[in-house]
Parts: sequence; structure tokens; C-alpha cells
Amino acid sequence: MSPQRKLLLLGTFVHSKTQQDLDFLHKAGIAVDAHGKIAAIERDAHDLSEVKARLLAKLGWDEAEVDVTEATEGQFFFPGFVDTHIHASQYANAGIFGKSSLLEWLETYTFPLEASLKDLSKARRVYSRCIRRTLSHGTTTATYFATRDVPATNLLADLCLSMGQRAFVGRVCMDRPDMNPAYYRDASASESVEATQQVIDHIRTIDPGFDVVSPIITPRFAPSCSAEAMKGLAELHRQTGLPIQTHVSENPGEIQLVAQLFPESNSYTDLYDKCGLLTPRTVLAHAVHISEEEADLIAHNKSKVSHCPCSNTCLTSGPARVRWMWDKGIDVGLGTDVSGGYSPSILEAARQAAMVSRHVAMAIEEEKEKERAKLTVEEVLYLATRGGARCVGLEDKIGGFEVGMEWDAQLVTLNEVNGDGEVHDEDDDHGFVDMFGWETWGDRVAKWVYNGDDRNTKRVWVKGRLVHRRK
Amino acid sequence: MSPQRKLLLLGTFVHSKTQQDLDFLHKAGIAVDAHGKIAAIERDAHDLSEVKARLLAKLGWDEAEVDVTEATEGQFFFPGFVDTHIHASQYANAGIFGKSSLLEWLETYTFPLEASLKDLSKARRVYSRCIRRTLSHGTTTATYFATRDVPATNLLADLCLSMGQRAFVGRVCMDRPDMNPAYYRDASASESVEATQQVIDHIRTIDPGFDVVSPIITPRFAPSCSAEAMKGLAELHRQTGLPIQTHVSENPGEIQLVAQLFPESNSYTDLYDKCGLLTPRTVLAHAVHISEEEADLIAHNKSKVSHCPCSNTCLTSGPARVRWMWDKGIDVGLGTDVSGGYSPSILEAARQAAMVSRHVAMAIEEEKEKERAKLTVEEVLYLATRGGARCVGLEDKIGGFEVGMEWDAQLVTLNEVNGDGEVHDEDDDHGFVDMFGWETWGDRVAKWVYNGDDRNTKRVWVKGRLVHRRK
Repeated sequence: MSPQRKLLLLGTFVHSKTQQDLDFLHKAGIAVDAHGKIAAIERDAHDLSEVKARLLAKLGWDEAEVDVTEATEGQFFFPGFVDTHIHASQYANAGIFGKSSLLEWLETYTFPLEASLKDLSKARRVYSRCIRRTLSHGTTTATYFATRDVPATNLLADLCLSMGQRAFVGRVCMDRPDMNPAYYRDASASESVEATQQVIDHIRTIDPGFDVVSPIITPRFAPSCSAEAMKGLAELHRQTGLPIQTHVSENPGEIQLVAQLFPESNSYTDLYDKCGLLTPRTVLAHAVHISEEEADLIAHNKSKVSHCPCSNTCLTSGPARVRWMWDKGIDVGLGTDVSGGYSPSILEAARQAAMVSRHVAMAIEEEKEKERAKLTVEEVLYLATRGGARCVGLEDKIGGFEVGMEWDAQLVTLNEVNGDGEVHDEDDDHGFVDMFGWETWGDRVAKWVYNGDDRNTKRVWVKGRLVHRRK
Repeated sequence: MSPQRKLLLLGTFVHSKTQQDLDFLHKAGIAVDAHGKIAAIERDAHDLSEVKARLLAKLGWDEAEVDVTEATEGQFFFPGFVDTHIHASQYANAGIFGKSSLLEWLETYTFPLEASLKDLSKARRVYSRCIRRTLSHGTTTATYFATRDVPATNLLADLCLSMGQRAFVGRVCMDRPDMNPAYYRDASASESVEATQQVIDHIRTIDPGFDVVSPIITPRFAPSCSAEAMKGLAELHRQTGLPIQTHVSENPGEIQLVAQLFPESNSYTDLYDKCGLLTPRTVLAHAVHISEEEADLIAHNKSKVSHCPCSNTCLTSGPARVRWMWDKGIDVGLGTDVSGGYSPSILEAARQAAMVSRHVAMAIEEEKEKERAKLTVEEVLYLATRGGARCVGLEDKIGGFEVGMEWDAQLVTLNEVNGDGEVHDEDDDHGFVDMFGWETWGDRVAKWVYNGDDRNTKRVWVKGRLVHRRK
């Protein structure tokens, strides 16, 4: 991307310092250079004009060459969210899943919609909406499943680039004739690999350094793929170094199916490992029912897990155990898994991660372990930002506010209730999080996590570029 | 309330026919008389002008005396929501609960806030905001816990009446010196009863027929109350016929506590029965851990249960079993339980009821029972409307669209995505539910249930009076 105007952001900044703790930078400022990188950070000034002066002096920048965004009292800047698992193609089905669970859901709702997106005008409608909505919810990086169709997948990559969303775009590979519908499958393992290569080639023409949009190698999941396809895709990973995404151990019926289809493997995870797919650049969605051994194998291989709490509940898959995966040393991020999950919002995924962790806790007898299982507000926000960044191998670039990282961020506004109990705008364009004025900063963030929505996200930047704004 | 202009509502209407089925009335119209009552319903006309003509002719009304509201294509009228359990006083804490469970949450977050509302200007701020927000989310009837304070509770009743929300307003009774903080408790059982009587007297002066605002007798919960107070309040119920609300069996620690405090009772529910509180007009919040015997006792006494899925998850209380309670013959409604639950929205409570039912299902081995445990979109909407109406004894007045019932309703709008994948207003004032045009009416409603919010609720009426509108 071409160089942009430099930025100065002034006000309060909140981001994860560790898994357990948020850092609150008050009377602070961040300077972003023409390439979207954070050049300097200042904090604890007397006021915002002092911050500004300090930043300009430190960097030798002239005021005329920078665009200044000043957060008002009570607003704060927060890192952009990372959605580590979302099916852009299924966006149009968000909220439509009935009482189904995974395998019937695929047949009834999912495959027909995905197949229909070979119509590029339909694909453009669905993908544009999906990108626009996820950006408006503060998702600055999305890891997308597209469909089998190469032109439609290329279109998704084009749209992400033009709309400015950092994205990993995966052409979905599924070649097993016995497990995929005749109207929606690859003719062979080599088609899976070659079609993936075509998407890689296309993205190289539009974003040669994969700076904003990157291909991601995408075997749908073991039941959809022959071992030959999985091995071919793993070979493609070794040649290109590109990341991999797939699903693992979402639902008991699926796990049983994998055991039947691949009797030689010790487990679902072991199968991926044997095929060469379990790499440090692999994102495994769900991992709800993995065994101790599988978790150890994932940790050993440094593969990542995308936790999709909304989907896991909607499809009655089960409650995934984030604390336990963390204890195993596995990196975990959040996925909306639209449309297994209904919501395009990672903020919603964060709160549902908190909720699912409480369902995990309810099933634990031992008091200390029960307490530990619950995820805090700080922890689910870590999952939504730095955790996600680690999953997609971008932990040095995004997920927090540090010099040398890129400016992927959002500006958050909440309602301030006046003395009469009214808010500024009765038409609620700031959402329905109400601040009474006595809340701590921790309370403010908790209120945002639990009742916030896209109305609270007023500005969204990716790599220093303003990609969404709201009144 | 004084007579109003007559109303004609024209368009599509959706409401619960049974627990399992929605009724969709297309090219339909509802006529509402000057007292807010539904005078006539017409459906399946050729077009809306035909509906209008049919209604006017049938009732002999003149066009000049009616206000007409016409839903556009894709909009629909839906019954107003009934919130059967919400603490208005805790609204300011929505989203603030940390990792606490019930008993520590009461001490840390709840009692201090409630006590502070004896400051009437603070109470006015919090209560106004709570009523405004719940109305904006389509809650036309709310069953409120206020605080111990009589003037503040009277103020809540005044505000409900002036803002036009149908409400049951309860002064919270809690007299046990060993179980309530010294700064926030009744001096004696007789104070509990007398203070309740004062609120009843006040509401009788502002709404003599309890047409819109009614008192509700409110022993906080067994651990907070002496047997004498509970019996005194039961006696007040027998004298006045007024409804009762309290909590039951929310959390294992609480249940243990009740067993210790009242060793003579067979169970938490039995204790209420022995005190005379288990009546057909009693709403019991939670009922998460009730035994078979307790459920049978509740059913036998025709008492009602307010299911509060959000709260039960937030406070790690447990997953309540709605299907099982229905099987027992118990009437169930939904409660937001703000601020045990973070959201003031009954639409959110409905989707969380669907989600919690899936967590209930996950724990069931037997396949058919597992399937049965899951609640459908239709069922959670029943809980939110007719189910709630039954809980508060208003099933003949509200919760559905029938001649003779009152017009408590909302007008719902969803986004229509155009050919380019854009929506009408990029500032999203219709929320983020996107309709692509190929959805069935069932799909539309499902999408609304899962991703809808207050932006979709454009108009709200109570008893024929327009009490909320949004652009």
C-alpha cells in the first residue's frame, strides 16, 4: 500500500499487557508513521497537548504532516479484534441453524449456500456485507474460509484488500466423493492442491508481500478430505510457508466419523499430524473434545486453536476448555465461526467465551478448579487481540500497542448518563452501554465487553488506514 | 389513563400461536380502540387498503378518528416482551460482576448500590435509564425488584406510569439481622410488611385499578427473610390478592444456606409453601437446582418460574431446565435479572435461553432427550411473550394478538441488502441483521432473534399508547 499521512492518536489507550492484565495508558499518545507502524508512545502527560508536543519533538515530525485524532474523556483506543475462524461464505446464514448439529447443519444449510456463491454477483453481495459488518464490529484481521470456487475466493481477497481488512483467505478443499455432495466437491486431491495454488497466485498479484491479504491453505476438515489431499496441502505449506486452517474435534459424531474413515490414525489430531498438517502455522478451529494426548500433541507442534464459543453452543457441539488448553501451553484465539456461530462480532465471541467458561466451571466439582475455569474480562479481551494475533503468527505486528507494531485499532465510545438519567442522543447511536460516572476504568471496560456492540466502535484502522467510521 | 386516539396497524403480524408455533398474519390489520384494546383483526386481504377498509367497515369507525401505522414490506409487528424478573435498582451495575457467584456478588456489588438509591436523585437517574432502555428493547411489561427504600420504590412506580411501561413494582423485604448488612436491612418483620403496605397505598393513589402499574409483594429470598416476615407477607397477599415475587434455588451455596437456616423445611420450595408464599400468583426466579419434588410442588400450587439464563450463566449458578419444567406443567417466562444478567434485553434473554438449553442438552446422553432439551426460536419467543404473560397473570391481556387483548406491541425492522451488498444506511441504524431477500419468514424471525437488538425495535406501544419510537 502507498504511504499514508502520519497519525497522532491522543487520549486513553487500553490493551492487554499479559493474559491476566490490561494496561491503561492515560493522557497518552501514539504516533503512527506513513507505513502504518507505531513510531512512538508517550503516557502520563499533564494533558493531551503536552503528549502531542512530546511526540512531535521526539520524532522530529512537523504538525502539518500529521492527522490528529483526539479521544474525548471516557473514550478509549483499543486494539483491533482478530477473528481466527470465520466462514465469509456463510455470512448470509447467520442466525439460521434451527436445532441442527454439525453434520446435518452442513448438509441442510451450509453446502447449498456455499455452492451457490460460484455466482460472482451473489458472492460479491455476501462477501461485501461480511467484510463491512466485521470491520464495523472492530475486526481488523479475519481468517476466512471462502468456498471451493477459485474466482469467488479471489474476489473475497480483492474485496478485503480494497476495503482494507487484514485477512487470511482460504479456498476450501474437500475432495472425498463419499463424504461431500456431488454438487459441491473437488474432483480429486490434485484439484484441491491446484485450485489452492491458483488462489495463492492471484493474491500474489494483488498484494505481493501478503502485507494485508494472505492466502491460507484450507483443507475443510478430515471427513471432507482424502489423506492424499491433506498430504498434498501439507506439501504446499512446506513449499510456501503459508499458514493452514482446518477444523478439529468439534462434535462427537464427527469424531466418530473420522475414526471410521481413518482407522489407522490414533486420533483426529494424530491424523492431521501424520498428514503433515499440524504445524506452528496451523489454526485448528474448535478442539472441543480433544484428549489429553491430543492437546499435548498440539502444544508440542505449536499449532494454534481457534475457540468458537458461540458456534459450539449453537450447534450443541460442547464447551471447549480454554483454561485447560492454556495450561497445556496452547495458543488460543477467538473465532466467530459465522454461521455455526450467529454473530459477526468478536466482542460477542469474547463475552460468550466468558459465558462458556462458566458452563465449563459448572461441571467441575473441585472448588479451586471451578474458580480457575472461569475467564475474566481481561482474559477474554486477551483472546480477542493478542491471543488471536499469536494464532495467525502476527504477534509482533498486531494485537497490542507497542513501538514497531502496526496501528490496527478501534476507538470506543460509551454513553454518559446525565443528571436526569438521559443520554446525549436518545436515538442511541452510541449503543446501550450506560456510564453513570462513578465507574472505574475496569468497570467501563467490563460494561463494554458485556453490553457493547458495533455502535461503540466509532473508528477502525488497519495498518494506519482508516477503514471504518461511524457518527 | 385517559382515552387515546384509536389505532389501525397494517402489515405483517407475528405472534405465538402455541409454545411450538408462530402465527404469521400477512396483509393483515389490527384495530385498537380508545382504551388500548384490540377491537378487530383482519388478515389475508388483497392489499393493505383492503384491510383498512374492512376494519373500518366492521367497526363502523371513521377514518378521521384513527391513527394509521403501516408496516413496510419486511417489517412486522410483534407482541411486546415481558420481563418477569429484573432489578431496576441494579441497572447501573449491568456488566459488572467479575468472577463472583451469588452470595459474594450480593455483598460486593449489589447491596451497596441498592442501599445508595435512598438518594432519590440517584434513584431517578438509575430508574429512568432502566425504564428507557428496557422500553427501547421492546419490554412492555417488567416485573421489578426496587430496593428497601419506600420513597425510591414509589418513585420507580411513578416513573413507570409516566413513561408508560406496564410494571409490577416490588419493595424489597429483608429483615434477618444475621444475613443482611447492618446498613441495608429491615428492622423487623413488621417493618417488611408495613413498608410494603406503604408502597401499595402509594400505587393505589397513582393507578387505582393497577391498570398499568401494580404493586408486587417481594420477600427478597429466604436467606434474607425471617419466617415471620415471609408469613406476614403471605398474609398480605391473602388480604390483597396481589402477586408475589422472590428467588428460589439459584445457587448450590444458597440452597445449603437455606437448609441450615430453616432446618425444619423439607426443601427451599417447601419452605415457601409452608410460609404461604407458593401461590398461583407467585413468580419464582431461577429454579435452577429444584428437585423433582420441588417442581411437582410448584406445579401443584400453580406458581410460576422466571427463567434467567444470562444471570444463571454469569454467576455460575447452573443451567435451568425449561423443557423439564414445561413437562412438569410449570408456566415459565423469561427474566433478564439485571444485574445478575448483564443485558436489559428480553430478546437477548430469549437467545440465551436457546443457548442454555443447548448446554442442558450437552449433558444429556440419551439422544432423543438431548434433542428435546433444545429450545427452538419459536419456543424462546413464546417464553418472551405469552409465557411471561402467564407468569404475571396477564395472559388474557397481553402476549399475543387477539380480540379483547390490549395493544402491547413493537414494530420490528431489519436491514435489506441491495444488489451491491450495501444496506440503506451505512450508519446501521437498523442494527446488523442483514436480509438478502431469499429468506423465508421463519428465517427472518430467526435472524432477528439471534442478531437483533434495540435498533430493530422502531415503535413500542403499551395499552395502545406509543411509549418509544426510533428513527
